[in-house]
Amino acid sequence: MNYKIMMRMWSWILIIEIGLMVPSFIIAIATRDQMAVIGFVGAMVIAAAIAFVFFAGSNRCRMNFYAKEGMIVTAFAWILLSIIGALPFYLSGRIPGFVNSLFEIVSGFTTTGASVVSDVEALGKGLLFWRSFSHWIGGMGVLVFFLAIIPSAHKGEGYSLHLLRAESPGPSVNKMVPRMRDTATVLYRIYVILTAINILLLLLARMKPFDAFCIAFGTAGTGGFSVLNSGCAEYTPLAQWITTVFMLLFGINFSVYYMIAHRRFREVAKGEEFRLYALIVLGSIVFITANLIRFGADGSMGKTLRDASFQVASIITTTGYSTVDFNLWPDFSKAILAVLMFVGACAGSTGGGIKVSRILILMKSARRNLHNVFHPEEIRTVRIDGERVSEKTIQHVQAYLALYVFILIISFLLISLDPKEFSMTTNFTAVMATFNNIGPGFDAVGPMANFAAYGSFSKLIMCVDMLLGRLEIYPILTMFAYSTYKKA
Amino acid sequence: MNYKIMMRMWSWILIIEIGLMVPSFIIAIATRDQMAVIGFVGAMVIAAAIAFVFFAGSNRCRMNFYAKEGMIVTAFAWILLSIIGALPFYLSGRIPGFVNSLFEIVSGFTTTGASVVSDVEALGKGLLFWRSFSHWIGGMGVLVFFLAIIPSAHKGEGYSLHLLRAESPGPSVNKMVPRMRDTATVLYRIYVILTAINILLLLLARMKPFDAFCIAFGTAGTGGFSVLNSGCAEYTPLAQWITTVFMLLFGINFSVYYMIAHRRFREVAKGEEFRLYALIVLGSIVFITANLIRFGADGSMGKTLRDASFQVASIITTTGYSTVDFNLWPDFSKAILAVLMFVGACAGSTGGGIKVSRILILMKSARRNLHNVFHPEEIRTVRIDGERVSEKTIQHVQAYLALYVFILIISFLLISLDPKEFSMTTNFTAVMATFNNIGPGFDAVGPMANFAAYGSFSKLIMCVDMLLGRLEIYPILTMFAYSTYKKA
Repeated sequence: MNYKIMMRMWSWILIIEIGLMVPSFIIAIATRDQMAVIGFVGAMVIAAAIAFVFFAGSNRCRMNFYAKEGMIVTAFAWILLSIIGALPFYLSGRIPGFVNSLFEIVSGFTTTGASVVSDVEALGKGLLFWRSFSHWIGGMGVLVFFLAIIPSAHKGEGYSLHLLRAESPGPSVNKMVPRMRDTATVLYRIYVILTAINILLLLLARMKPFDAFCIAFGTAGTGGFSVLNSGCAEYTPLAQWITTVFMLLFGINFSVYYMIAHRRFREVAKGEEFRLYALIVLGSIVFITANLIRFGADGSMGKTLRDASFQVASIITTTGYSTVDFNLWPDFSKAILAVLMFVGACAGSTGGGIKVSRILILMKSARRNLHNVFHPEEIRTVRIDGERVSEKTIQHVQAYLALYVFILIISFLLISLDPKEFSMTTNFTAVMATFNNIGPGFDAVGPMANFAAYGSFSKLIMCVDMLLGRLEIYPILTMFAYSTYKKA
Repeated sequence: MNYKIMMRMWSWILIIEIGLMVPSFIIAIATRDQMAVIGFVGAMVIAAAIAFVFFAGSNRCRMNFYAKEGMIVTAFAWILLSIIGALPFYLSGRIPGFVNSLFEIVSGFTTTGASVVSDVEALGKGLLFWRSFSHWIGGMGVLVFFLAIIPSAHKGEGYSLHLLRAESPGPSVNKMVPRMRDTATVLYRIYVILTAINILLLLLARMKPFDAFCIAFGTAGTGGFSVLNSGCAEYTPLAQWITTVFMLLFGINFSVYYMIAHRRFREVAKGEEFRLYALIVLGSIVFITANLIRFGADGSMGKTLRDASFQVASIITTTGYSTVDFNLWPDFSKAILAVLMFVGACAGSTGGGIKVSRILILMKSARRNLHNVFHPEEIRTVRIDGERVSEKTIQHVQAYLALYVFILIISFLLISLDPKEFSMTTNFTAVMATFNNIGPGFDAVGPMANFAAYGSFSKLIMCVDMLLGRLEIYPILTMFAYSTYKKA
């Protein structure tokens, strides 16, 4: 293990975080929010001190860097970011207790959007902005950001690849451009442009500027923290439709936008992941709308369709915004949403969950294996977009699913130990909502409720789940594995 | 497809069913239960008529027989058995409607134990006996019984193997004795001896003879229909402990008993499935007992341990008897039971669920695949009991799991369409309880409730789920597949 380069990177990450706090800090000053100002100053000073120690300890570091180091750097970077990021909430006294503050910011960075705050409007604009901005930072990834902004002289091909792999969602990182180190820049360019368009459209739909920025950050990162106690219910129908469309856009593999920019439309239309994603979204909207109408939805056909579309987009992309309390929907609509919680968005997007491409690989390999049960003599390969998926990739995806189920079960059991008694649906969907980085679950953690009622132990378990979900298990697991620190 | 031999087998199966109805019929006569007598006579006459038609249509059949035919014979045999088996309930008028009667007997044959009857004691002894006896028949399998009793001149090695494979639970059928056709006889011999010991012990524990037979049938088949409205709560503590132990014994792979009979004790002690099963059972009992005591259980330490053990044994073996309403237990205890619902019993036992051996293969292959993620150059094999598990077997198990999850999701969505609104926990655990052949779920389908409130459509879906669970998916799937009936 090359600890020196790891410390060097953490010091860079902390300096970036200080920079990222500046806009929220300025808003806190402008709104004369004294407590928030104290919170931000305290956080920035502590971050600077730790960054200095790491930097001093990492002089003359060698630049060699392997997959294991990439995992560890990423896992600890996210924990460090979260601890520092929680300080403004904690030091300002606006969120009581460090565990609650940590839960809130882990939920922000991991783009979960699960909150422990009932009256969010009381947080103040500075802290609200930091909360929503953390979604935007966490959506694309801090290390990807770091790769995108550091001078290219420092970009070693080796560690770029390992960091991107450790932080990016999906079974494999697409090489959009020949050199990995430029991929980060391309990704962030797409991310910034799409976010800017989203903000602009929300402003045109008469959303207040502050809300437009915050809601767009949450949409881009597929986060889900809102700035009003009522969620997104009070925004204009147009603003809700814009949010629906952009949630879905940010749930698509970003390489699609790269292809579109290079006029490779045919490849986009043929992409199997994209087509399955579109099919699931449209199917879910149709079924839920029909179900709501049959059960006597309150409101017009247009409102019903809008509510159904908004909630489907919000859940499948794991954003977690809501315009209605879907807890009150009929069973069938709730069941569809529950299934969408597992599915998640496309690989290479900012969304969480198992990811459509993994579902696709699992479905195709299951069909192949099923065929083998009856025709053991034939040898079939699994193909996606016309290309053969290697047996190694299939094994990785199956290992991922097994780990996913294992973590789900362990977390469910641990959270059931909470001194407060909830319903089974509450406990299970609380784990689903945090592990898949969605935000709301059902029953007592539904869209109009929050996670405050859980005890500290349960909240820490859910913090680990959120990080496991966002970093797709392996980095966090590597961090916990004894063999990681063993000398070869 | 060799339809003639299939029809010949179905006619035999029907004749066997008529024979199996005789004890219940005699009890109905002895208790002067006129309506039940009418029900049995009607069922037997109709069965005889259909058997005659099949027999007449199958003269001069060739004896060749392949895996596909084995699947189809088994699937249709179970449907035929269920339709005829439902007639006594339907024709006697004791269960209103044919769908309800069908649900009850499918639940019986598949050893599920989910009921639509609130006041079971009102069914009368004849029908109660038939209900419990159907567990005993279904536990070991009707075709295995058929193989065990037909004259050995008719036992072709080919079709014995295919029928055993189609009907027996677990990833692979162990060849206990060199010839498959004798395996069926060995299995039934163990089954009969264990059941007899169970009845004897229950009688010694002062259970009424009628109850002792019925409860032992449900225990042996891991069914779960009780004969009292209070379930098993009123039996003596000793009778409850005996039932606990025998539920666990019938959840073990029957080849273990064969090994014990041949004094191969070391093999038994080393068996990894057996050890994991024992570990899960003991761990669950310890954790639930501790949890119940911490939450202030009503009753002594001994009663708490007894209740915990009974419910753990009942759920992991998918029997479904209950001595308490575990719906009222604290979250953690309920969460453990919910996880046990998935696990199920050992392969080669009468229990349902995913089966411990499949869990073992999935865990070991996940660990292997996880190792491969970090060490892609190494080639590792998966071993169980010291023997290499072929990649083909691993693929089959993974295909099974994928199908299992897929059926679970589809059933959950379909049942959520029920006109009556239940909780999400109710709908989900109703599917779990039927698909895994357990019986009770949670909330509105908990151990003190029943499935009567669901509509006919939901009940038929659950009938299919029970059959899919009991026959482990493939036979039913083959029956539905278009390609099965296509001429090569």
